[in-house]
Amino acid sequence: MGLRTVKEYYKSLEKMHPTAYILGQKVEQVHEHPLIKHMINSVAKTFEFEHDPEGKKFMVAKSDLTGEEVSRFLKFYTSPEDLIAKVHMLKFMAQRIGGCYMRCTGMDAISSVGIELYNCDQKHGTKYWPKFVEFVKEMQKNDYVLFSGVTDVKGDRSLRPSQQKDPDMYLRVVSKDSKGIVVRGAKIHQTGSLCAHWGLVVPTREMREADKDYAVSFSFPVDAEGVIHVYGRGTLESRAMEECDMGNVEFSKFAPMVLFQDVFIPWERVYLCGEYEYCGDMVRNFGNYHRHSHGGCKCGVGDVLIGAAATAADYNGLPNVSHINNKLAEMLKVTEAIYGCSIAASVEATKTPSGIYNVDPVLSNTSKLYEGKELAEVIRMMIEIAGGMVADIPSDKDFANPEIGPLLKKYLKGPEGVSTEDRVRIFRLIEKLAFESRDIVSNIHGAGSPETHRMTVLRNANIEEKKKLAKKLAGIKEEK
Amino acid sequence: MGLRTVKEYYKSLEKMHPTAYILGQKVEQVHEHPLIKHMINSVAKTFEFEHDPEGKKFMVAKSDLTGEEVSRFLKFYTSPEDLIAKVHMLKFMAQRIGGCYMRCTGMDAISSVGIELYNCDQKHGTKYWPKFVEFVKEMQKNDYVLFSGVTDVKGDRSLRPSQQKDPDMYLRVVSKDSKGIVVRGAKIHQTGSLCAHWGLVVPTREMREADKDYAVSFSFPVDAEGVIHVYGRGTLESRAMEECDMGNVEFSKFAPMVLFQDVFIPWERVYLCGEYEYCGDMVRNFGNYHRHSHGGCKCGVGDVLIGAAATAADYNGLPNVSHINNKLAEMLKVTEAIYGCSIAASVEATKTPSGIYNVDPVLSNTSKLYEGKELAEVIRMMIEIAGGMVADIPSDKDFANPEIGPLLKKYLKGPEGVSTEDRVRIFRLIEKLAFESRDIVSNIHGAGSPETHRMTVLRNANIEEKKKLAKKLAGIKEEK
Amino acid sequence: MGLRTVKEYYKSLEKMHPTAYILGQKVEQVHEHPLIKHMINSVAKTFEFEHDPEGKKFMVAKSDLTGEEVSRFLKFYTSPEDLIAKVHMLKFMAQRIGGCYMRCTGMDAISSVGIELYNCDQKHGTKYWPKFVEFVKEMQKNDYVLFSGVTDVKGDRSLRPSQQKDPDMYLRVVSKDSKGIVVRGAKIHQTGSLCAHWGLVVPTREMREADKDYAVSFSFPVDAEGVIHVYGRGTLESRAMEECDMGNVEFSKFAPMVLFQDVFIPWERVYLCGEYEYCGDMVRNFGNYHRHSHGGCKCGVGDVLIGAAATAADYNGLPNVSHINNKLAEMLKVTEAIYGCSIAASVEATKTPSGIYNVDPVLSNTSKLYEGKELAEVIRMMIEIAGGMVADIPSDKDFANPEIGPLLKKYLKGPEGVSTEDRVRIFRLIEKLAFESRDIVSNIHGAGSPETHRMTVLRNANIEEKKKLAKKLAGIKEEK
Amino acid sequence: MGLRTVKEYYKSLEKMHPTAYILGQKVEQVHEHPLIKHMINSVAKTFEFEHDPEGKKFMVAKSDLTGEEVSRFLKFYTSPEDLIAKVHMLKFMAQRIGGCYMRCTGMDAISSVGIELYNCDQKHGTKYWPKFVEFVKEMQKNDYVLFSGVTDVKGDRSLRPSQQKDPDMYLRVVSKDSKGIVVRGAKIHQTGSLCAHWGLVVPTREMREADKDYAVSFSFPVDAEGVIHVYGRGTLESRAMEECDMGNVEFSKFAPMVLFQDVFIPWERVYLCGEYEYCGDMVRNFGNYHRHSHGGCKCGVGDVLIGAAATAADYNGLPNVSHINNKLAEMLKVTEAIYGCSIAASVEATKTPSGIYNVDPVLSNTSKLYEGKELAEVIRMMIEIAGGMVADIPSDKDFANPEIGPLLKKYLKGPEGVSTEDRVRIFRLIEKLAFESRDIVSNIHGAGSPETHRMTVLRNANIEEKKKLAKKLAGIKEEK
Repeated sequence: MGLRTVKEYYKSLEKMHPTAYILGQKVEQVHEHPLIKHMINSVAKTFEFEHDPEGKKFMVAKSDLTGEEVSRFLKFYTSPEDLIAKVHMLKFMAQRIGGCYMRCTGMDAISSVGIELYNCDQKHGTKYWPKFVEFVKEMQKNDYVLFSGVTDVKGDRSLRPSQQKDPDMYLRVVSKDSKGIVVRGAKIHQTGSLCAHWGLVVPTREMREADKDYAVSFSFPVDAEGVIHVYGRGTLESRAMEECDMGNVEFSKFAPMVLFQDVFIPWERVYLCGEYEYCGDMVRNFGNYHRHSHGGCKCGVGDVLIGAAATAADYNGLPNVSHINNKLAEMLKVTEAIYGCSIAASVEATKTPSGIYNVDPVLSNTSKLYEGKELAEVIRMMIEIAGGMVADIPSDKDFANPEIGPLLKKYLKGPEGVSTEDRVRIFRLIEKLAFESRDIVSNIHGAGSPETHRMTVLRNANIEEKKKLAKKLAGIKEEK
Repeated sequence: MGLRTVKEYYKSLEKMHPTAYILGQKVEQVHEHPLIKHMINSVAKTFEFEHDPEGKKFMVAKSDLTGEEVSRFLKFYTSPEDLIAKVHMLKFMAQRIGGCYMRCTGMDAISSVGIELYNCDQKHGTKYWPKFVEFVKEMQKNDYVLFSGVTDVKGDRSLRPSQQKDPDMYLRVVSKDSKGIVVRGAKIHQTGSLCAHWGLVVPTREMREADKDYAVSFSFPVDAEGVIHVYGRGTLESRAMEECDMGNVEFSKFAPMVLFQDVFIPWERVYLCGEYEYCGDMVRNFGNYHRHSHGGCKCGVGDVLIGAAATAADYNGLPNVSHINNKLAEMLKVTEAIYGCSIAASVEATKTPSGIYNVDPVLSNTSKLYEGKELAEVIRMMIEIAGGMVADIPSDKDFANPEIGPLLKKYLKGPEGVSTEDRVRIFRLIEKLAFESRDIVSNIHGAGSPETHRMTVLRNANIEEKKKLAKKLAGIKEEK
Repeated sequence: MGLRTVKEYYKSLEKMHPTAYILGQKVEQVHEHPLIKHMINSVAKTFEFEHDPEGKKFMVAKSDLTGEEVSRFLKFYTSPEDLIAKVHMLKFMAQRIGGCYMRCTGMDAISSVGIELYNCDQKHGTKYWPKFVEFVKEMQKNDYVLFSGVTDVKGDRSLRPSQQKDPDMYLRVVSKDSKGIVVRGAKIHQTGSLCAHWGLVVPTREMREADKDYAVSFSFPVDAEGVIHVYGRGTLESRAMEECDMGNVEFSKFAPMVLFQDVFIPWERVYLCGEYEYCGDMVRNFGNYHRHSHGGCKCGVGDVLIGAAATAADYNGLPNVSHINNKLAEMLKVTEAIYGCSIAASVEATKTPSGIYNVDPVLSNTSKLYEGKELAEVIRMMIEIAGGMVADIPSDKDFANPEIGPLLKKYLKGPEGVSTEDRVRIFRLIEKLAFESRDIVSNIHGAGSPETHRMTVLRNANIEEKKKLAKKLAGIKEEK
Repeated sequence: MGLRTVKEYYKSLEKMHPTAYILGQKVEQVHEHPLIKHMINSVAKTFEFEHDPEGKKFMVAKSDLTGEEVSRFLKFYTSPEDLIAKVHMLKFMAQRIGGCYMRCTGMDAISSVGIELYNCDQKHGTKYWPKFVEFVKEMQKNDYVLFSGVTDVKGDRSLRPSQQKDPDMYLRVVSKDSKGIVVRGAKIHQTGSLCAHWGLVVPTREMREADKDYAVSFSFPVDAEGVIHVYGRGTLESRAMEECDMGNVEFSKFAPMVLFQDVFIPWERVYLCGEYEYCGDMVRNFGNYHRHSHGGCKCGVGDVLIGAAATAADYNGLPNVSHINNKLAEMLKVTEAIYGCSIAASVEATKTPSGIYNVDPVLSNTSKLYEGKELAEVIRMMIEIAGGMVADIPSDKDFANPEIGPLLKKYLKGPEGVSTEDRVRIFRLIEKLAFESRDIVSNIHGAGSPETHRMTVLRNANIEEKKKLAKKLAGIKEEK
């Protein structure tokens, strides 16, 4: 297939039967559930753009493995240009979705894991890399949606995996035999697990020898036996349930918790099993790549935040007001810095032995630090520009009521030429952009916490070298 | 009565029958509606504390009008000490409600209106002030809940009231006769209108002669004929409807839109009618008082934000971590500045001819500017400390499901000694504190937009005097 | 005398002969030295205002000890009103000096030390408090200028006083006999030591039993034998040396290092000697008081920063420009918050057993945290408003040159009605306000480092109580 | 010559005799003047690195005009790679100079002017472009130091050039004949004019028809008749005059005011004369390029700021302290964002008809906005980390004094293994980095004021397109 169509994507979902619970209920036709279908829409859009003349330029790449045209979401990063193209693709998509389209974690995971499997094979004589290359080819050939399973539930965060009272607080191998392994544990915040075909598990942290059983990477179909998806409740899902007041009329996001209840994984799908020394780099690779991804997608969302704020100003009768322009410029400053640092992290990428390029960690984490702190301020400025109506406009249901509907239409009118309906729509969009918990928390904690980003910047910034520069200028002779 | 009991408050509501619409439906027993009752709880708490030995110190004052003990929510501000006591009361209450308890707008409105009525009588020989004093006495005597009606819908914001295409975009007098006046218009964001007994309308801006019909102030019972309350939808109300995942288990906030469909107001309840030159100062008084109120209440909420963040850190197994302590200190810095500037604005209050004290406008608006910008950062830091679980924990309904409930309880466990249930509770509270749109938008736009606050600071700061100080030090001789 | 006149102050200096070094040279008539005399001017101004009808209201208080009128700089803080009056006085002075007038450290020290001497006497039966009261009476009676000696040089900051390789890195008692003690060490950043009559030494940190010899407080004349003042070089002193391009034409600041070369102190001037458990509280009292002092004085300086920026805008031909007004409002926001929190810290002061009131530590440290971080941004905004001319205007000497002087006068002209001379003056003032190292570093490190302020806020904020508030609202039952 | 040696550079200066005034005095051997020679050192370093094996990679490029190896400072930007290489070169140099090396304004000017000369020739049939190419070849061939003359003195900033009362407030053509033109006016803040061989004048703003006489660009030798350089006084020059307490022991910066007293320019050196419509784009090109330059150089300086702060922490006995590491990470965040956005602005450069590439204006101005606001905070954090000693350490002259020198050496000692001399050196460097007015003001106003940067971001960001994205997601149908 190579490039899947929207229709083929929907069709493929019909054949998948993941075990899923939503708000306390086991759900059979999960892909049609009102809380899931808007997310499926987002993913479907990636397939639509793979066949769109403009979109194609962003979405489609030539596979290094097969020479075929494949989805860029499934390609290893084998050059700085690949990394720049990724950032451009994610910005393009995010501008058109206004949020998440759920194919980045898988994309980032394949390069993250790939680098270390190559290293592991070199050192330990394992055969993970060729096995993994076959897996990636399979993904490319079928244009599968792949999500990564990184974040464990972690229990008591002051303890390592092997120190936890309950040994299952990090996903682990509970048994193995000639055919494969059995794994148990839980991965949380699994963006789009229910829109995907496959998952790729990545260890969530560095491991030591005592944590060997937790050093495991593997792939699995999302409807494998023993895999349970539990929908995590966000702030605004009642809107989707009631089918009104949606804000973003087509698209939404969720991130289930995925439980592994003694899931069997055949050896051909296992890519790490006990070689604990690669876990730290795997997840650091993933973190750096995923912060780099945010640079593209959150800038795209930022364009929507800015556009929504500017539209609200127009719809309040306040176009081109000095203090509003000033705020728009500040909003741009932040979103462009997030974006710019990701582009720069691509340019300054370095080649690994596998041939895959690693992004510059200082620049990609710098981008994420601005997202983590300043994007909240961008959102605040959007609300500041839009005004108090963001808080509490009456519902579409009130507008539909024959007694008060006409009154609301009268009283919530803005300037001439703008319909009350459109004015309400833009406030609902702003509400969605400002108060959808999954998106907002992702700005801060997606791809690791800000503290992790700070530490990554610090560790990779070569402070010793900078001390030398300062000492030289001060006239201090360095001790030998 | 003087000081109403909780029981009396609930009883009094039974006798009120306001016209109310919620999510498209006309509601009869509105005070028992799941979306309203948590707010009623908040208001009821004020009565509980009026009779509580500790609370009484904050809540009860001696009336300057009658010499009786009355609710501080119904007392004119007749000294700097009154203003300090107000800030202390609001902080005390907000620490215990974690949000709004809806009696401040009325409290701020009576002093705002009072000052100008006195001035008006002096200049125009009107008799508003004595009439108004009787109204306030009546409120005090019955310990009524009073809300203020300030914010008009405003239509095209680049136009004045009398310039709007639809003349009803600001509340106005449509007719008058010997008995009274008839008013039409809509006031939006009316915090707690459905928990109150009475409303007091205040003009929303300065007016010019052409806007004379819009220069009107009056009081009215919330169930007066022609008054329609329309619930404005916030982000999290489905939780209250489903009675689970509440976060703040007892209390909540809302702010209906109140429509005046040709409402008759007898002259005895009319306090301004055409004397347009007092509108500007009335609403500026209100703004300054209400920004001063926020100084107390938002610091109290801030204490809850800080406490919630610190508890989440404990429940993640991360007590006393250096970078978390650093963030807690930053959170304190902001909330204490908001509070401190309100206390200072009380100390530097000035007496008006009516005997009522006006707060220092520079300091009260400075407090609000920090709230408007920095409180968002406090909330962001709370999320940063708490971690990604704020985004999407499964519902109470999932925990109640026999198949997955036990698994969730196992996997969402934190450190020893903390139950999973409590851990989930603190994340739900944080979700409520971070994503309840009415509260968050109130931080920014409550008591006017930040741009208004900035302009108020600038206009009252005597820049010319500061220029003189600088010139003197620079050795510049001032032109005479 | 009670209230010293300016003339008396200058006269008194003639009689003092401190040992002083400035830029490598021993200086005899130090008070007339070009680097010292501008500072003497600042101090002299305090005496001028003690006799000025307007200034008197701020500067003069009634002594609790003698009932006489005394300088407020020498009065214990025996009420919240005293603390408010202090903040008002410091703001008043700073607006007129544009910087430091050097009498606050002594003022803050007497209350800091006093509180703990009283406590010490109660517990240990020592007689420090009455001896100290006599000292303060003597200061009041003669209206002496008193500086405090707090900051030791500290050596290796990871080590305690008694652990340092060189035992003199903190000031210590090297011997004692029946007549008195001999002390050795060095105090750095001693604001105005060369303008003062007396010094009062305060321990710089908490001490433990092993550090007993370092637990010492005493008073001494600034020209006592063995006391050496070494001028610390700042950024702009060449201007004073050359007597041109001064910026602030009358006033300046410096803070010598004071060396104690085995200085003998008679017992009657010794107020602590070995009672190590009071050192921590003494210096914490001092820190909290002095941060509170900054709230007044730095807001006064802030008024000058704002006035200078606004004047520069006028002199560039840009009065009343929207983005400049916006910046002025932001500058005001910061300076008023610094001020407001100090006023609030006064209101919420608490009485100690000695009768002296301690400021609220959370609020006074919050004020200092804003100064430490945000005042730099206020200064940056002043430069942003003023423009690039702050960097590098030609010297007064260039203007005096007959060949280029007229050309400079022509080309550096701003709008009509403003002389080039005045325009240059305002830029020179801005240069002084932005680049005088002693002032700028004092904003950050005066009264302790920001990290100390953060820790003080955190320790005094009762986080446990805030956790309880959050848990209650979340429905968490507290463990008993 | 192609690549000049250091020796050749010094030799070439001997032959130049610019008219120069420094602090009121006409100076003959200006290049040996203590205030100039440290800056000459900085420029000389660029020649040193052109011949250094490592430096060469950054400094030397192949000329598009001649195919020869030339200094990158004299090359047109003819690809995104050229722009990236520029940023890398500037960062490399700034790390080694700790400030300005004065060859960027010329470099940025040649591409800025070049683009528009090509456009002008196409439209007006003028022959500027080939003449200008010859000039650039000449510069390359001799590896000349070229500065740009952009910033006029501007007079009353609310008026256009032709509206000023004194017509000379912007540089203008006062007469022309067959041989050339005569120009009059003054350019201020002319970084390094006295270290250069040539200057290239660029109009400072857009011009209209009435301003035609001000629409002029030309090149001139810095010692041309009628050109007067007046040294602008900065904060720290007395140190260089006294040859002690330098901080940065080798290098410094200055930016004279350059007066054009009816200077004759032959036609062969005139590149624009009356074609006013190109002025706006010329200076906007220059602004965008020069903000992009700052991205490299200020990040390099940032590395020195970070290194100096980290060294000071070590020298205080506080290596590896949590809150200091946190601050270092924040400092890195800012400097890397400044750098990253400049790299990204290079990647997204666009080709102009001349073949020269223009940087992306949104990204280059975003970089500058972070520099303009956040670099001040980086410097503040450096001071916060270093401690109060930045304010006022005694002078080298005090250390040289036999009486107090040994005492100072004793008392200003830090931890074991660090000499007091080195400790003092690092504080002096920090003082220089924090308080050198030319550098600090350049962070804010270099390459235009922050307000200009904001407006440039806003105008180039296509807000209309972003509104469309938002409307589409909100379900708003666009009016046709």
